[in-house]
Amino acid sequence: MRITTLEEINTVLPRLDLVSAIEAAFVAYSEDRAVVPPVGELLLEKGDVHIKYGYVRGEEFYVIKIASGFYGNAQLGLPSGNGLMLLYRQETGELVNVLLDEGHLTDVRTAVAGAVAARHLAPSQVQRIGIVGTGVQARLQLGWLSRVTDCRDALIWGRNAEHAERCAADMGTVGFKVETTGDASAILRECNLVVTTTAATEPILNAKDLRPGTHITAVGSDTPHKQELDAGILTLADVVAADSIEQCKVRGEIYQAVQQGVTTGGLTVELGDVIAGRSTGRTDDEKITVADLTGVAVQDMAIAGAVHAAL
Amino acid sequence: MRITTLEEINTVLPRLDLVSAIEAAFVAYSEDRAVVPPVGELLLEKGDVHIKYGYVRGEEFYVIKIASGFYGNAQLGLPSGNGLMLLYRQETGELVNVLLDEGHLTDVRTAVAGAVAARHLAPSQVQRIGIVGTGVQARLQLGWLSRVTDCRDALIWGRNAEHAERCAADMGTVGFKVETTGDASAILRECNLVVTTTAATEPILNAKDLRPGTHITAVGSDTPHKQELDAGILTLADVVAADSIEQCKVRGEIYQAVQQGVTTGGLTVELGDVIAGRSTGRTDDEKITVADLTGVAVQDMAIAGAVHAAL
Repeated sequence: MRITTLEEINTVLPRLDLVSAIEAAFVAYSEDRAVVPPVGELLLEKGDVHIKYGYVRGEEFYVIKIASGFYGNAQLGLPSGNGLMLLYRQETGELVNVLLDEGHLTDVRTAVAGAVAARHLAPSQVQRIGIVGTGVQARLQLGWLSRVTDCRDALIWGRNAEHAERCAADMGTVGFKVETTGDASAILRECNLVVTTTAATEPILNAKDLRPGTHITAVGSDTPHKQELDAGILTLADVVAADSIEQCKVRGEIYQAVQQGVTTGGLTVELGDVIAGRSTGRTDDEKITVADLTGVAVQDMAIAGAVHAAL
Repeated sequence: MRITTLEEINTVLPRLDLVSAIEAAFVAYSEDRAVVPPVGELLLEKGDVHIKYGYVRGEEFYVIKIASGFYGNAQLGLPSGNGLMLLYRQETGELVNVLLDEGHLTDVRTAVAGAVAARHLAPSQVQRIGIVGTGVQARLQLGWLSRVTDCRDALIWGRNAEHAERCAADMGTVGFKVETTGDASAILRECNLVVTTTAATEPILNAKDLRPGTHITAVGSDTPHKQELDAGILTLADVVAADSIEQCKVRGEIYQAVQQGVTTGGLTVELGDVIAGRSTGRTDDEKITVADLTGVAVQDMAIAGAVHAAL
């Protein structure tokens, strides 16, 4: 049994082909080859803990991920989020690796899923990338998009101008030309590949600003209460791709739209089926596409397995 | 964060007052101070995994236990059961200790619960201890009973005479005078403190052999399918104490008896309430008492906390 620190994980991450690994995970999920029991949840006075676990039939490992959020930790100088992943052998139940990733692998697999969605749904020519939000996930999403598009021109929207400037500066150092805006409508007016990464509970992007040929990936909403997209955006979309149709019925942007009585204009498909070519994704550069990513455990299994294999 | 091996755990275990720790855990459970979500379960082709987790409000830690059983492992020269416990701080979600106990702490907390049940329900004079079963739990139960009774005379029943002899020899070296039998009725005829530790799915002990003044602790049945006691035993009992009334409605001896249309003769009480003096346990040495122990997560929290504090 091996115990792997975040430092060791960070050493191997850059050389992994995570886009392919996460693509394969979505395909396995959509082909019903994944066994993913309901998420375990432990609610405490100061935070909450989620336990996600499962495996893909026929693969080598099963994975148990424990992630927590304690929102008062910042005041104590501690990270609010934490987590680890345990990798076990399917044949024997042997614990093979304890990945002490402190939640970083969850951030990365979420960002990689954004790259996967863009790879399969973004228009062929990305003019400008729009990022909604200025946190860790905003940076990671933009960074991973550089693996699937040549565009290096980005516009970042944030409620807090200072945070937006800091995020823009960080992304400037890794090869992006970045501007910031405090006007969310500019994101849809100026960008045709958009990623939303906030914990907003009211829409930030509005259907009235939406142009043909746009792709939006929404990764911020992973609960029944969060929402970043005006439900009208889903009505106008030609294709709405969910990471998990089952899960998007109870959380995320699709859930919000359905709650508000809005039917999604395009057929809702599953991202894994688009990747495998069983469902139709973007058919031309004028179409509007939306990916609703709420996070599925197969992503955790894929990234844990890829890291382990590279150690 | 600390990582603790089984060897280190075994170094501190002998000096812990686990009987008091497990008593306190049962009391907390019965006082509804414990938060214990449903057990997570992952079923694989070759085995299964259970995730038990929870906390006692107001205490320092929460605990997540991962335990597995892979029944083909013996053929591969590997242990069939495995497990670890993760200890986290309730205030911040910080991972404090990874107890790599390989399932041993589960075995021990189960045995300690047997000692707790005996302490509160056994007759004042234990003439002879009867142990049904010859495995790890048989040895541990007898060993822990030595902390709560002076009796050092035991009778062990096993289906396999060789296994029974080996178990008897092992317990002889730790101060017990042990005989073996292949006749299960001898256990109830000769012993007034009995512990059943098998994975039987048909009753081993029968009501016709039951004498006044007997206490039986049943620890083997922890699923809806396992049963060690003839349901008639529960009818004759003056007190039936469950570790968790809620859980014993769906698994264990009480569940089996209710399924067979047998109502338990005595009031079914919760062990934590007996310990705290809120429910009546044994009132005199002629009463028949049964403890149905199916295993509750507060035991895991208690033993993990006690081990951590002693390191």
